[in-house]
Amino acid sequence: MNIHLVCTGTELLIGHTLNTNQHFIGGCLDAAGYRLAAERCVPDTGAAIAAAVREELARADVVITIGGLGPTTDDLTRDSVARELGVPLKYHPDVHAVITAYLAGRNVTVPAESLRIQAMVPENATPLLNRNGTAPGLWCPASGGKVVVMLPGPPRELQPMFQEQVLPRLRELAPPEVARVAFSVCGLPESAVAEVVERELAPFADIEPAYCARPAQVEVRLSATPALKARLELARARLMECLGDAVLPAGCSEPAQAVGSMLLERRLWVATAESCTGGWIAKTLTDLPGASAWFSGGLVTYSNDWKECLLDVPEAILNDYGAVSAETVTAMLEALFRRYEADAGMAVTGIAGPAGGTADKPVGLVYIATGLRAQRQVSRHLFPGNRDSVRQRTVTTALNQLRLQLLQAR
Amino acid sequence: MNIHLVCTGTELLIGHTLNTNQHFIGGCLDAAGYRLAAERCVPDTGAAIAAAVREELARADVVITIGGLGPTTDDLTRDSVARELGVPLKYHPDVHAVITAYLAGRNVTVPAESLRIQAMVPENATPLLNRNGTAPGLWCPASGGKVVVMLPGPPRELQPMFQEQVLPRLRELAPPEVARVAFSVCGLPESAVAEVVERELAPFADIEPAYCARPAQVEVRLSATPALKARLELARARLMECLGDAVLPAGCSEPAQAVGSMLLERRLWVATAESCTGGWIAKTLTDLPGASAWFSGGLVTYSNDWKECLLDVPEAILNDYGAVSAETVTAMLEALFRRYEADAGMAVTGIAGPAGGTADKPVGLVYIATGLRAQRQVSRHLFPGNRDSVRQRTVTTALNQLRLQLLQAR
Repeated sequence: MNIHLVCTGTELLIGHTLNTNQHFIGGCLDAAGYRLAAERCVPDTGAAIAAAVREELARADVVITIGGLGPTTDDLTRDSVARELGVPLKYHPDVHAVITAYLAGRNVTVPAESLRIQAMVPENATPLLNRNGTAPGLWCPASGGKVVVMLPGPPRELQPMFQEQVLPRLRELAPPEVARVAFSVCGLPESAVAEVVERELAPFADIEPAYCARPAQVEVRLSATPALKARLELARARLMECLGDAVLPAGCSEPAQAVGSMLLERRLWVATAESCTGGWIAKTLTDLPGASAWFSGGLVTYSNDWKECLLDVPEAILNDYGAVSAETVTAMLEALFRRYEADAGMAVTGIAGPAGGTADKPVGLVYIATGLRAQRQVSRHLFPGNRDSVRQRTVTTALNQLRLQLLQAR
Repeated sequence: MNIHLVCTGTELLIGHTLNTNQHFIGGCLDAAGYRLAAERCVPDTGAAIAAAVREELARADVVITIGGLGPTTDDLTRDSVARELGVPLKYHPDVHAVITAYLAGRNVTVPAESLRIQAMVPENATPLLNRNGTAPGLWCPASGGKVVVMLPGPPRELQPMFQEQVLPRLRELAPPEVARVAFSVCGLPESAVAEVVERELAPFADIEPAYCARPAQVEVRLSATPALKARLELARARLMECLGDAVLPAGCSEPAQAVGSMLLERRLWVATAESCTGGWIAKTLTDLPGASAWFSGGLVTYSNDWKECLLDVPEAILNDYGAVSAETVTAMLEALFRRYEADAGMAVTGIAGPAGGTADKPVGLVYIATGLRAQRQVSRHLFPGNRDSVRQRTVTTALNQLRLQLLQAR
């Protein structure tokens, strides 16, 4: 099944809005065993939208459009597509009722005319319920058994609609073309992961691996024909065994989630002491809902004064070894246990750049201390890249170091 | 001048990689007075790349391709485009020398063959120097005065190449089509900004406004024909006067930058005390290079214990008013001045959700206290959206509240 995507919206072309919808839909299709074969972005004009849908419909089985379903003058997708398909729009009282109920629950009033516009549906189309907004999606049959699917642009409206209503309908059109499994590996370089994967997959010539590298983390995806689903599971199990603790548990796309669930399960409280990352580790932990059940707090000791006053790092250590040293980061971690009664802790200090590097201590040098009361570990790193990259890698590496310690302490 | 973009790379279609290059190029062109008229993504196959370039070249003056210039088997853009244009590839000794020098400076050795592949250049093309990688960009004339520009995919290679070498060449092809000015407004809702802009622009019928809303912030862009550049500046000055302190200074795209430069200029030190944002304010401040000259540190007091121990929030206040209250946030800010000797401070507490809301204190309720020693302000907010949105708005609003106080204290 050939699936093409047409994103409408001038805001995507002039650098206002990053096209996260393409990323989301491509990823969902891939995970479901389908492939997004092509994508294009066109401005908000009826002519551009109609031409793009016409061209893509000539070469695809399913064309998904995004955006332009609202009630304003630049919302032209519904009209342009209906005209292109030669289908009249028809007032749909059920859609009108659903939108009215949605707005009533939110105490919002909208001009009757704009309500009516959004209740106009191509005669042969099935409306797709919008849980988080007014404009319904539209599933529109086209000639030759093809389909045009129109989705609203806001991600919080599009995402549940795609997963709950579009994917199941695609599955009815055609079975998945590939079976796929994926897992994330943390703390090994991509080349080391690839070496293990290539070696272990040698007897599995029918399984294709792919890698997606993120800072200090690699996602491995394996694919095969749907008939080989069982073999795929076997290959995954084999790889996960070889890669051992470096593999994040199912459902975790980053180490913070694994850390959080182990802390919660063992009723341990974690605290952080950050210098170069400036609060990013704490921010990453508190991105997770429910962090208040296992994260007590964090100290961002950016200046040496704060390191001395809040973490009791001795002035002598700061003078003799410097703020970026194994000695300093060790003292920072110790203070989390001794003074702040943490059960688990992470401390980091480093040179994120662009300034501040020296021959001895270049930009990218980072010390990370993590541990539980009975078990501490200090590591030294030289991270590549710019300020943002060094900081991001420090965050992920610190979280993963604590994750491995929690695993070992089991 | 019609500019179309062709992004190559299966990773963009299967949800591995977010297409930040499109966002970057669209924004750069827009700022320079040009318009990206269309974009498409195709997989890494020679046939798909050639077909896309052929189709786009039929309707555009300039086609920019991204990706597929490296030395591996899935780097097919250079070959496919040269074949499409009917131009032979020719070994380019200067390009070879530049790549060799680049690699030598990095102590990297690369197989001679892959070096040679990257030194093959379409006969009539001008290579574009790559400061941050090996594959050069290519500026390739096509028939009818058209041009195909091939750029490498990694953003750190593409971005300087586009700004330093592509934009100036585009300016030689055709003058900018629009003149544009932009500024950011912080702390006013989009509707209030639009009201002022529409009112004040009434006498400027030849100037078109556009808005880009981000959490707690709005970017305003004004455009007109290039001949009206002076009128555009006049309109901007008028709007900035009407919007007053809500406008961020030139060169600042977010309030943290304005806060940082005022603190640096006045030699003041800021500290933070965060609950619901969990370190995100400190992270945002330390995203800025040089933050160590004005940010002393931050406290992430997520639990009530930490609020009591580190910020001396009286137990009575926590019991009587709760952790999310004006009383608590005031006590948090006071501690930054009294106990941590800050010159300026920000304190926040709130309910980010998804759990933890009550009828009295719903998800989205946030208290923000900011100030200088002589001047404090506490505000109460009910932010919409999910956990991430509530936290992001809290960060921007706290930074902007302090920014306004710093302006008033001048």
